[in-house]
Amino acid sequence: MSDLKDGICADRFWLDREHCCWSANDSAFKDNDCKSWTTWPEMFHYYERDWLYGTLDFFFFVLWAVAMAGLAVSLVRTFAPYACGSGIPEIKCILSGFVIRGYLGKWTFVIKSVGLILASASGLSLGKEGPMVHLACCIGNIFSYLFPKYGLNEAKKREILSASAAAGVSVAFGAPIGGVMFSLEEASYYFPLKTMWRSFFCALVAGVILRFVNPFGSDQTSMFHVDYSMRWTFMELIPFAMLGIFGGILGSLFIWANIRWCAYRKNSRWLGANPVYEVIIVTAITGAMSFFNPYTRKSASALIKQLFDRCGPEDYTMDLCDYNRNITYGVVVDKVDDNYHTGDLGNGLHTAFMQLIMALGAKLLFTIFTFGVKVPSGLFVPSLAMGAIAGRLLGIKVEGLTYALQQSYPNSELWTCQIGRDCAMPGLYAMVGAAAVLGGVTRMTVSLVVIMFELTGSLEFIVPTMAAVMFAKWVGDAIYRRGIYDAHIELNGYPFLDNKDEYPYSTVAGQVMRSSAEMRLIEQHSMTVGELEALLRETNCNGFPVVNDHRQMLVVGFCTRMDLNAVLKNARKTQQYVTTNSPVHFSTDVDLVNQSFPSQQFLVVDDRQQQQQSSAFVSGDNVVPSSTYAGVPVPLQLGHIMDVAPMTVADQTPMETVIDMFRKLGLRTTMVTTNGRLLGIITKKDILTFMREGEH
Amino acid sequence: MSDLKDGICADRFWLDREHCCWSANDSAFKDNDCKSWTTWPEMFHYYERDWLYGTLDFFFFVLWAVAMAGLAVSLVRTFAPYACGSGIPEIKCILSGFVIRGYLGKWTFVIKSVGLILASASGLSLGKEGPMVHLACCIGNIFSYLFPKYGLNEAKKREILSASAAAGVSVAFGAPIGGVMFSLEEASYYFPLKTMWRSFFCALVAGVILRFVNPFGSDQTSMFHVDYSMRWTFMELIPFAMLGIFGGILGSLFIWANIRWCAYRKNSRWLGANPVYEVIIVTAITGAMSFFNPYTRKSASALIKQLFDRCGPEDYTMDLCDYNRNITYGVVVDKVDDNYHTGDLGNGLHTAFMQLIMALGAKLLFTIFTFGVKVPSGLFVPSLAMGAIAGRLLGIKVEGLTYALQQSYPNSELWTCQIGRDCAMPGLYAMVGAAAVLGGVTRMTVSLVVIMFELTGSLEFIVPTMAAVMFAKWVGDAIYRRGIYDAHIELNGYPFLDNKDEYPYSTVAGQVMRSSAEMRLIEQHSMTVGELEALLRETNCNGFPVVNDHRQMLVVGFCTRMDLNAVLKNARKTQQYVTTNSPVHFSTDVDLVNQSFPSQQFLVVDDRQQQQQSSAFVSGDNVVPSSTYAGVPVPLQLGHIMDVAPMTVADQTPMETVIDMFRKLGLRTTMVTTNGRLLGIITKKDILTFMREGEH
Repeated sequence: MSDLKDGICADRFWLDREHCCWSANDSAFKDNDCKSWTTWPEMFHYYERDWLYGTLDFFFFVLWAVAMAGLAVSLVRTFAPYACGSGIPEIKCILSGFVIRGYLGKWTFVIKSVGLILASASGLSLGKEGPMVHLACCIGNIFSYLFPKYGLNEAKKREILSASAAAGVSVAFGAPIGGVMFSLEEASYYFPLKTMWRSFFCALVAGVILRFVNPFGSDQTSMFHVDYSMRWTFMELIPFAMLGIFGGILGSLFIWANIRWCAYRKNSRWLGANPVYEVIIVTAITGAMSFFNPYTRKSASALIKQLFDRCGPEDYTMDLCDYNRNITYGVVVDKVDDNYHTGDLGNGLHTAFMQLIMALGAKLLFTIFTFGVKVPSGLFVPSLAMGAIAGRLLGIKVEGLTYALQQSYPNSELWTCQIGRDCAMPGLYAMVGAAAVLGGVTRMTVSLVVIMFELTGSLEFIVPTMAAVMFAKWVGDAIYRRGIYDAHIELNGYPFLDNKDEYPYSTVAGQVMRSSAEMRLIEQHSMTVGELEALLRETNCNGFPVVNDHRQMLVVGFCTRMDLNAVLKNARKTQQYVTTNSPVHFSTDVDLVNQSFPSQQFLVVDDRQQQQQSSAFVSGDNVVPSSTYAGVPVPLQLGHIMDVAPMTVADQTPMETVIDMFRKLGLRTTMVTTNGRLLGIITKKDILTFMREGEH
Repeated sequence: MSDLKDGICADRFWLDREHCCWSANDSAFKDNDCKSWTTWPEMFHYYERDWLYGTLDFFFFVLWAVAMAGLAVSLVRTFAPYACGSGIPEIKCILSGFVIRGYLGKWTFVIKSVGLILASASGLSLGKEGPMVHLACCIGNIFSYLFPKYGLNEAKKREILSASAAAGVSVAFGAPIGGVMFSLEEASYYFPLKTMWRSFFCALVAGVILRFVNPFGSDQTSMFHVDYSMRWTFMELIPFAMLGIFGGILGSLFIWANIRWCAYRKNSRWLGANPVYEVIIVTAITGAMSFFNPYTRKSASALIKQLFDRCGPEDYTMDLCDYNRNITYGVVVDKVDDNYHTGDLGNGLHTAFMQLIMALGAKLLFTIFTFGVKVPSGLFVPSLAMGAIAGRLLGIKVEGLTYALQQSYPNSELWTCQIGRDCAMPGLYAMVGAAAVLGGVTRMTVSLVVIMFELTGSLEFIVPTMAAVMFAKWVGDAIYRRGIYDAHIELNGYPFLDNKDEYPYSTVAGQVMRSSAEMRLIEQHSMTVGELEALLRETNCNGFPVVNDHRQMLVVGFCTRMDLNAVLKNARKTQQYVTTNSPVHFSTDVDLVNQSFPSQQFLVVDDRQQQQQSSAFVSGDNVVPSSTYAGVPVPLQLGHIMDVAPMTVADQTPMETVIDMFRKLGLRTTMVTTNGRLLGIITKKDILTFMREGEH
């Protein structure tokens, strides 16, 4: 569908340009162009390659791009609003315990699959890796409903989703280990070893299937396979570190600009109401500007592949490999010769150099405005492309410098270039640059290195890549503290408790809690149904601590609003003897209740009632003594809806420990006590507020 | 030093055989043998290669082995008993919070370094990877004392140790990412992302330095670099899975036998008292038996390298590559030809096959008795060697089978062998087998796969390796539940709370706790110095809960035995007015104390005393009102030694949650309460006992 923007295969319309020309077995086949492949002007029988041809070509290119992007955004808007974006920020939140209903549903899955194809084909500056992770998580979520053990237990389901995220990356990049690492480092919140093994297995199966399906039609499972061997010298660690620093700066700039634009979009009424127009405008501008630069016109994957590659002896026709060959060391050599890398740039390479600089700027601009529009869009591939361009540019410069140094100091040990051997390899710099920029944008480290070397299959460059990624993270964190995903989480205000930072403040829990004096509590034995209903009406807390009485304030348990609401409504509906004045008891100890309301009270109950009462006991229903005696209201026993083991912390507990407990145990609320007496409560929201304030 | 067992370099005694022959520039150089290299019989001017030569050769081989091993064990025994073994089980415990004084000290470091060289050179069946991790942790520990922030804080120090473990593996295998993964999966207990980045950086620096030092004298950073490209077909996943199953079985057998032998050693008086003799006997037997088999005689690393390698066209002189070449498909081909792999075994290969089987058995036997003796000993390399042998054996068989099938069904799609191309590559099977056996022994998964492909540099085989490792883990866990390190931890009875397993019992905290009725408590305000001293004398608990009084039993704090002991002794020594009857107050609220003991009490204090009193206040010392009034004993204020924020759980908390808290928050003890009243306490020991009982 990407090639549809250029033309169509005359014989078999479903083939892309490469396969069209292959199947045509055309003798005029050259550079992926052949007679069977019909460009749009040719389709309308206009064969002359002049300005009209160019205009028609341009027109159809943009038209198709706009049509596909428009279709994608309309589908997303109409059927599944959650299908837009990369989905990784939301999945991070879901894996940390936040529930977004429908985010991983089947409609999201279907629409995102279709939308992703259309959006990728439209030539927008977006990648398919983030959406692939989202799609994999949708599959994980949908399948988990087949197994009640997982479908009904949110914690178990999150284990499945962690493994799904790993499989998503495994398939998107052909990188099974990288997938596991991505899930560990970026996506997942809790990642115990057990989940790691399962993710590992999931990624393994994904890897086997990918290899079996063989979608790229090659023997390689790695997307950007680099099959030449390269050496690097220690001096080159300096340019690699420079690439890392550049990656950090570019990444931060991108995050800052993108967040600013997204915040503007959030507040702008016109943009908010017209996402379709926004996408169409962005696509039209992207298409129009991309058309004139060969490096932006081709797909980002193809560009990355080209930039990672070396210039072979036979590649001298390509602009990117146009070195002046016959002047090195004063030895005149042939064009087609091993000694093709001289560092002395030819005209073609000068042109390519300028085009690449413009492509870098254009890609940055496009991606800033694209990431966040209402189509499925990832940013791995655009980031890699930007980095690969920057790296290649630096590589070409370093190559020239190295040859110059080599000629000046031919006996130096530092620059070991020999005639017929490469000195600095621009392809390697492209790889390192790609990793650096992606590192600057996402702030991943280990997973990124693993993904990069599964992508390229070259183990030799693990150390340069590591160095660049490390620098990118340091510089990036210094400039803009959050990675792109965390920045989007913050922008959208999701309740995500970041588990990366340390908060070494000397605050204690007692200083952060909401005091129990300001809130409404439940007393264990002395409240009535009416009072509880008033409590629910007058407050909007999500839960209430239960204390033994309001003087002693000893913590007995915790009741959520939802449970309380449900059980009171149910009691009012089904138990006719429950009145507003019915006392309510929060205790699991049934004997105690019976003791307080001596048994003679229940002696007058008729048989039917008696039966109902005992069945209520057995079925664990909410009414214990469901009878009324001489007008005395029936007491309600609600011990079973109370969490009898709520988490408590002492008021002197350092906040660092409290935050640790929230993160590691996945708490939503904890009660603060001193000597067993309730002092107040701390919720996840309080922690988030506290941490945000701590930053300033 | 390994080559010293065979002979010595005549010109330069410090060179090994390979470098000796290289530097000699000998024209007679062949198969690493040359004139400069003098064997021991030759040293004594006996050149004739007959039975006497052989006997002398054998005698010196064993003699040197015994001498080196004996020296190693004597050093370890005399100077640093902790220097023995691999150290990984102990490091796991240390990283989980257990303190073993001196285990990571400088003596351990020095002796283990020297001992490791000697032990490796002695030809014992041991590896150097585990000890390398231990050495790296020693360095991390020693260096951390230079930075008080880390040296004085056990938790911070453990972060350093986690990174050290990563660096250790990074250097041992030339596998920086593998090192990080090893630290994550096997060594570390808590591994937050922050520690991961630091480990990553540490491993990166280790990798750069390794590459700079270049100890193997090659351009490759990977130890067993495989530079040929191989394909595998889907049918081959069956033998790969078989290798995985075999690895699980062999690993479990090894663990079982090794643990049995180590348990026997623990209980045997003679073995316990004479570790030197044990090592000498094991070394003598290993040396004597290894001498006669070329595959056990050479070093394990060299063996692995050979087994991983392919048979090149020029390798037909080697036994391992002796295929009958000229009968395939009826086409007579030359000996030196591309079509060297026929699957039809020659005589040499038959011999090699038998020798390899014997080598496998011998290695298994040696390693069972070697791992655990009192010399530095790892088991990565022996395990890899066993696996590589098994894999190579299977590979040769599969190769033969494939060719046979190919000849029977030449048009089948399943077995795509062509003349001149390899069908099944025995070297690949060796790699997969090595991973499988190491997986069966250690039960690592992701880290093992990463290490394997950093070791070999071949990305293509990540899926076969993953499959084999997965099967090895499944089968291994089914046969013997623990990996070798966990098994040794259990054998030694270290207090290690395994964070891998789930314990889905429906027990609650109240059922597991030690009841407060059975233990001694501290009351906040009503105890005297004498009573506390009696408490310390009469019990051996490591800490005591502090309650407000023995009727209400509200939890106020927790006091450790060590602090209490120290502060009471100090008070007795320095404060002359403290008597056995002095009341003790555990409260941080000084006003409260002053209130209970009205100020006029202190009016009679003389000037000197007054000064001392205020200085006691300022310096935070333990005595608050250090005066005596008319024979009334001086009250002691010990609030500052009490942990005022102890962790508490409700008695109805499920044990699963409690275990989770112990694991994730690194607790040593928690108090069990109901409605704020103390019911009992649970210590880490109680949890370990509970979990062990749960298993049966």
